[in-house]
Amino acid sequence: MKRIAILGSTGSIGTQTLDIVAHAPEKFQVEALAGGYNSQLLIEQIKAFQPKIVSVATKELADEVSKQITSTTKVLYGEEGLMEVAASSEADLVVTAMVGSQGLKPTMAAIEAGKHIGLANKETLVSAGHIVTDAARRKGVSLLPIDSEHSAIFQCLNGENRSQIAKITLTASGGSFRDRSRAELEGVTVEQALQHPNWSMGAKITIDSATMVNKGLEVIEAHWLFNLRYDQIDVLIHPESVIHSYVEFEDNSVIAQLGNPDMRVPIQYALTYPDRYPTPTKRLDLAAIGKLHFREMDFNRFPCLKMAFESGIQGGTTPTVYNAANEVAVARFLKGEIAFLQIEHIIESVLLKHESISNPPLEVIHEQDLWARAFATNVQF
Amino acid sequence: MKRIAILGSTGSIGTQTLDIVAHAPEKFQVEALAGGYNSQLLIEQIKAFQPKIVSVATKELADEVSKQITSTTKVLYGEEGLMEVAASSEADLVVTAMVGSQGLKPTMAAIEAGKHIGLANKETLVSAGHIVTDAARRKGVSLLPIDSEHSAIFQCLNGENRSQIAKITLTASGGSFRDRSRAELEGVTVEQALQHPNWSMGAKITIDSATMVNKGLEVIEAHWLFNLRYDQIDVLIHPESVIHSYVEFEDNSVIAQLGNPDMRVPIQYALTYPDRYPTPTKRLDLAAIGKLHFREMDFNRFPCLKMAFESGIQGGTTPTVYNAANEVAVARFLKGEIAFLQIEHIIESVLLKHESISNPPLEVIHEQDLWARAFATNVQF
Repeated sequence: MKRIAILGSTGSIGTQTLDIVAHAPEKFQVEALAGGYNSQLLIEQIKAFQPKIVSVATKELADEVSKQITSTTKVLYGEEGLMEVAASSEADLVVTAMVGSQGLKPTMAAIEAGKHIGLANKETLVSAGHIVTDAARRKGVSLLPIDSEHSAIFQCLNGENRSQIAKITLTASGGSFRDRSRAELEGVTVEQALQHPNWSMGAKITIDSATMVNKGLEVIEAHWLFNLRYDQIDVLIHPESVIHSYVEFEDNSVIAQLGNPDMRVPIQYALTYPDRYPTPTKRLDLAAIGKLHFREMDFNRFPCLKMAFESGIQGGTTPTVYNAANEVAVARFLKGEIAFLQIEHIIESVLLKHESISNPPLEVIHEQDLWARAFATNVQF
Repeated sequence: MKRIAILGSTGSIGTQTLDIVAHAPEKFQVEALAGGYNSQLLIEQIKAFQPKIVSVATKELADEVSKQITSTTKVLYGEEGLMEVAASSEADLVVTAMVGSQGLKPTMAAIEAGKHIGLANKETLVSAGHIVTDAARRKGVSLLPIDSEHSAIFQCLNGENRSQIAKITLTASGGSFRDRSRAELEGVTVEQALQHPNWSMGAKITIDSATMVNKGLEVIEAHWLFNLRYDQIDVLIHPESVIHSYVEFEDNSVIAQLGNPDMRVPIQYALTYPDRYPTPTKRLDLAAIGKLHFREMDFNRFPCLKMAFESGIQGGTTPTVYNAANEVAVARFLKGEIAFLQIEHIIESVLLKHESISNPPLEVIHEQDLWARAFATNVQF
């Protein structure tokens, strides 16, 4: 019986994690859940899974939740509540499925409490990869990737000597606008941007797929997770998202992980690693799919990806501000404040203004993150 | 330094194995070589690699070889010579690269001598899988597959729990006649049959690819190598031969091995397993390839594959006679005695006449093999 906690239980990854748990109740015990503002869904989750601790965003929501449940679940709120869900339950493994760089502090708390991490919050490694990987090593906890691309690489590395990796390739569907030229991106709407061709995901990550920022964050995450140089990380356009990513070894042998686009496979793998059990997903049928397509990444078409590589190579606080600028820019786009192509202009402006600080401690990361957010909020067009 | 012996050093796999050795002389020592009738090539190999023992087909060839070399290499011949190359050198690993069921006896001798096997002779497992795998288990030696498909599966299983395999899929290019209907196979020539679209291989295996017998033998080999039921083994047409085969696990995650079609990658992997080193091969470039195609296997178009599954499921001496009938039929086709489509008629005739014997010892396998050959030789049209 594996005991788990989920940070971000009401989001896309959180609900799919609970779907996995619901399909194998004999394997998993839900110890703690942190939702955000969706208290109604959290209440349903409490009733279904009987966690010992939950947390919501505010005191008001906590009071509301307390009133509507009959179980002995402890209901907390705010950052303190989040930290308690991350670190103080009996969970063996904490799934970090909240969106954005707010995931960093609770993830660090969970690691310090000796819990294995099911890592779905990529910004944690992007903002503070050196600190997080150091802490995980020191505490002997595993960082088990939940992103489909990183789970693919992780699976391909089973039983292999990591010093014999030549390169890894992260595949990219190209997102909702993959068949549009840059000129055709003028004036696209939020609704259009939210139509991902293959994956059903949250709003932020769907926009990040369209800008290729998502792939950029994945590149930086892969650098930390697998201890690779940036010149060992490639990105390839693969519209069908069937090959989720692959590793090329020194002998020119390539090991790839494939499947239908369904996050429940990588989620469950993080929960059951190194074992595999049936998932409530569909088998891959390559004959029915018939064809797989591949084309080179065009860094001029997707400048956000180019900036991600440059930010990763520069290191220090640069990936932090790249990510923070993007978070603000996407929020502004979703609110209708800016156009789609202005997302990249905001990131570019922040990177141009930023003075990178090497090997930053958490406080400096936090400070630079705030600086980038303020700057990005105020960029006018 | 790994010490190796090669049975069939002058054939396609044998020469490619020596190419691998020549590219990494610091890693390998050639202890013994068995050629066949190509004494000139064997003489060159002796000069280049200085083996301690070699063997050729006949006494006359052995005398000719002895006269033309200056080294202290011991020159043997015939079955006795082959057995000595297999079992009496200081080799740690014996590459079994001879063609056909003649590979069985020396492979058994090598296993009994405690040598690991680089298995390129698939007929060994087809004819006597139960005996060979038992002996390997008893002696604690590894059967390291060299066929690209089995090497692919073997690589995909690294670090995995084999009890969690759902299925494996062997990919098939479809061979030289993959785009012809059955009607269009009437009157095809030997020359046409020898044009394999992707792989450069020996004549026998190239014909076996066109009839799909090769894939059938691979299915039976996979059953023994990976201890799988026949309903866990699928075959898929994949014209580009880029995905060399794949494993589907219980969680619906698929791990595949990919590469350009170049036998030197699986050959070297068998020599260096579990490590990987650079090979003198080209990197896979999926963007340059652009598209991969897949379609379901048509068992009516390729009845030899259907007969292979049926033979494997029946077991006992049936796979032995399936293979023996095919060896004779292919030889008769290559000599111009029979038409291409008569290969399958010969196999079918032999299988119809055969009375399968369960769990046969080696003598019975040998006896049934001879019976099938005699019968196949005499089938008239």
